[in-house]
Amino acid sequence: MKTLRPYLLMFTFLGTTTGLAVSLSPKLFIHFLSIGIFSLAGFHVTMSTIPNLKAKFVKAKVTGVDMCKQNAEPIPEAMGVIAGSVFLITMSLFIPIPFLQFDKSYLITENFISDSLKLNVPIINLKARVFDDLQFESLIAALLSICCMVLLGFVDDILDLRWLHKLTLPTIASFPLLTVYAVTYNCTWVLLPKPFSFALNLGIFYYVYMAMMAVFCTNAINILAGINGLEVGQSLIISLSVLIFNLIEITSTSWKVHLFSITFILPFICVSSALLWYNWYPAEIFVGDTYCYFAGMTFAVVGILGHFSKTMLLFFIPQIFNFLFSCPQLFHFVPCPRHRLPKYNPKTNLMNNSHFEYNPKQLGIIGYLCLKFARLFRLCHEQTISPNKVICTNFTLINLVILWFGPKREDAVVRILLFIQIACSAIAFFLRYYIVQFIY
Amino acid sequence: MKTLRPYLLMFTFLGTTTGLAVSLSPKLFIHFLSIGIFSLAGFHVTMSTIPNLKAKFVKAKVTGVDMCKQNAEPIPEAMGVIAGSVFLITMSLFIPIPFLQFDKSYLITENFISDSLKLNVPIINLKARVFDDLQFESLIAALLSICCMVLLGFVDDILDLRWLHKLTLPTIASFPLLTVYAVTYNCTWVLLPKPFSFALNLGIFYYVYMAMMAVFCTNAINILAGINGLEVGQSLIISLSVLIFNLIEITSTSWKVHLFSITFILPFICVSSALLWYNWYPAEIFVGDTYCYFAGMTFAVVGILGHFSKTMLLFFIPQIFNFLFSCPQLFHFVPCPRHRLPKYNPKTNLMNNSHFEYNPKQLGIIGYLCLKFARLFRLCHEQTISPNKVICTNFTLINLVILWFGPKREDAVVRILLFIQIACSAIAFFLRYYIVQFIY
Repeated sequence: MKTLRPYLLMFTFLGTTTGLAVSLSPKLFIHFLSIGIFSLAGFHVTMSTIPNLKAKFVKAKVTGVDMCKQNAEPIPEAMGVIAGSVFLITMSLFIPIPFLQFDKSYLITENFISDSLKLNVPIINLKARVFDDLQFESLIAALLSICCMVLLGFVDDILDLRWLHKLTLPTIASFPLLTVYAVTYNCTWVLLPKPFSFALNLGIFYYVYMAMMAVFCTNAINILAGINGLEVGQSLIISLSVLIFNLIEITSTSWKVHLFSITFILPFICVSSALLWYNWYPAEIFVGDTYCYFAGMTFAVVGILGHFSKTMLLFFIPQIFNFLFSCPQLFHFVPCPRHRLPKYNPKTNLMNNSHFEYNPKQLGIIGYLCLKFARLFRLCHEQTISPNKVICTNFTLINLVILWFGPKREDAVVRILLFIQIACSAIAFFLRYYIVQFIY
Repeated sequence: MKTLRPYLLMFTFLGTTTGLAVSLSPKLFIHFLSIGIFSLAGFHVTMSTIPNLKAKFVKAKVTGVDMCKQNAEPIPEAMGVIAGSVFLITMSLFIPIPFLQFDKSYLITENFISDSLKLNVPIINLKARVFDDLQFESLIAALLSICCMVLLGFVDDILDLRWLHKLTLPTIASFPLLTVYAVTYNCTWVLLPKPFSFALNLGIFYYVYMAMMAVFCTNAINILAGINGLEVGQSLIISLSVLIFNLIEITSTSWKVHLFSITFILPFICVSSALLWYNWYPAEIFVGDTYCYFAGMTFAVVGILGHFSKTMLLFFIPQIFNFLFSCPQLFHFVPCPRHRLPKYNPKTNLMNNSHFEYNPKQLGIIGYLCLKFARLFRLCHEQTISPNKVICTNFTLINLVILWFGPKREDAVVRILLFIQIACSAIAFFLRYYIVQFIY
């Protein structure tokens, strides 16, 4: 009975979305219906596979320990690979639908010896339907990039690769994507905002920008992570925002790319929801880097091939803020401890701020300015232990939430963070549809 | 100094092959040169990455024990994922080369306010070269199928999936491939041999055949495996045979598909050679199911999209024999023990036959016939322990080699098996180029 609820929820969600999509563009009825059915199947497979494979993950010692719980049982790690695999399988099975159709052909035998012997038996054949070259290539190239990222993410989870790999591998994985962009659209013009108001051909720099987009998306989610349900939760909110944006734009002239985007985002939402069901506080499973890479690459793919990479970046406001806020520590202007996650207090069952300590006399000028700036906007809280030792809250969004809202239970922290994500999505839509007219 | 030898060997091999290929079709000079360089790079990266990552594999407990050695140290397992990843990275980086070219474009700014302000700064842009649609789609779809298989293989190695998955997953992974076949060539005719001599349209059954081909290739190598260097060794011989076949056919009218095949086979040979260097007796690493899946899918892809699936099957004669020979045990007509690998004798350091035991009175009619047939052709050796208990050598090609050639050291067994593979390739060429004229 417990598991009936998510199914009902998913059914309602998919029903509403596909209904809305079909009403917006009725000619795509079969397409939306099939995406909906495949997504639901993907949701069901993920929901039922995760509990079955948990024991196998524990047996294979692909486990982690939840730092924010009283009992330190090993929890299956890197479960994102199931979501990623189910997504890839769903999409692989879906691929033939928009491009192929069954056709009653005939088992005609052409006898080379005599023409008299001919069999005409009906037989089913596959034929290319109204076949759109660009879309097909884009679809396969996008899946290739995502598949590469899932593979590399899982390898990373198992082997624990170095930081250098985390930056280079997404770049390489985005190559098929960039090639497909170059051979299909190859539009490298950007429109500059007022007061310039002219279009600029960025040429190869546009490709560099897109490759960086792939690196950014995969790592942005990976940095804002570490507490139950946060990775999947934020990815879900971003993907829902993208879905809403696509549904708004599907009536426009560029409906094709938004249809393309929906084709990816809907199954993604479904497998992610199933994952969140098990990953929500208290987590039965961890999603691992695999999921962060998988989600990030899906967003990058959709943003690049859907031609809305700038709008996509708007949905990443909390991640961008978190990255910029982390920079002083990431680039070691101020000290950076090995782990920056909030500290769990087993007595109160609450999350408290974690700190780094520094010596004010040994601080560089940039570090000093960073701290001054953070103090000014109340982004950190300092405590002087001795003249040579000051402790300060770590520069992450999660710590900031705890600093501003006080110590909270893990799920309350996640709820606040996800609420911030939703609020930022609202701001993104406001910027995209209202402010934009004053800029361009 | 020790590692200079494989590099020299690889350099000679690649030099000869690309030299030969270029001399056969000089217009493809740049293409062959770039494949050669990328393959060499892939070889180097695999050679240098494996020793570096060995410790990480051991640390992550992705290890196995070599059953045929005196010391039972854990050996890194599933190293095929490195070969597979390097192959995918090499191919991803290679993709832009045949399809894109740099183009001096201009940073023209189109000012919407006034036409007077125009900047003409030279800039580099990417443009689609003589762009062959079919080839591009095929390339990406093939890579997607291979990438899916590497991912699933690695997951299988870590989690130890069930047999059912080993059969269904390759089928699903082949869907993008089949779709691309349907939207591009979509030729489902087969020519029947004499005395029929007519063409038959198999329709959808042709797709079923191709999907089964993918399942067969991935599992055929997986079954004939288990001793140092055998998986990689046989794959290398098959791929070299395919390369020779492609080089013969590249002067024909269907040169395009053979060029396509070479594009996959050459990097595959290079990463496999690097893997074999470490996997050869005494093995420093194991390649795992990952490699078998990776190799099998590469062969399936090349055979299907290169339109020589029947010729490809000819190169699998030892695997087909091994599969047919194993059938009585696989389908439990005679008993099948958990492991059928030869037994290692630590005293003599030799491999001996492994046995299964059966009760002659409880044997079914099919099992009885199978045993009678095997006895007739000396495919097994039986020993009566008691009236109710007979032991018989296991029905695998490896056991057969030991039965016929006597107990041997592990590397001698592999050498004999690889020699059989080479001999069968020679037979395959004989069938393909000489016997074929009497059949069709």
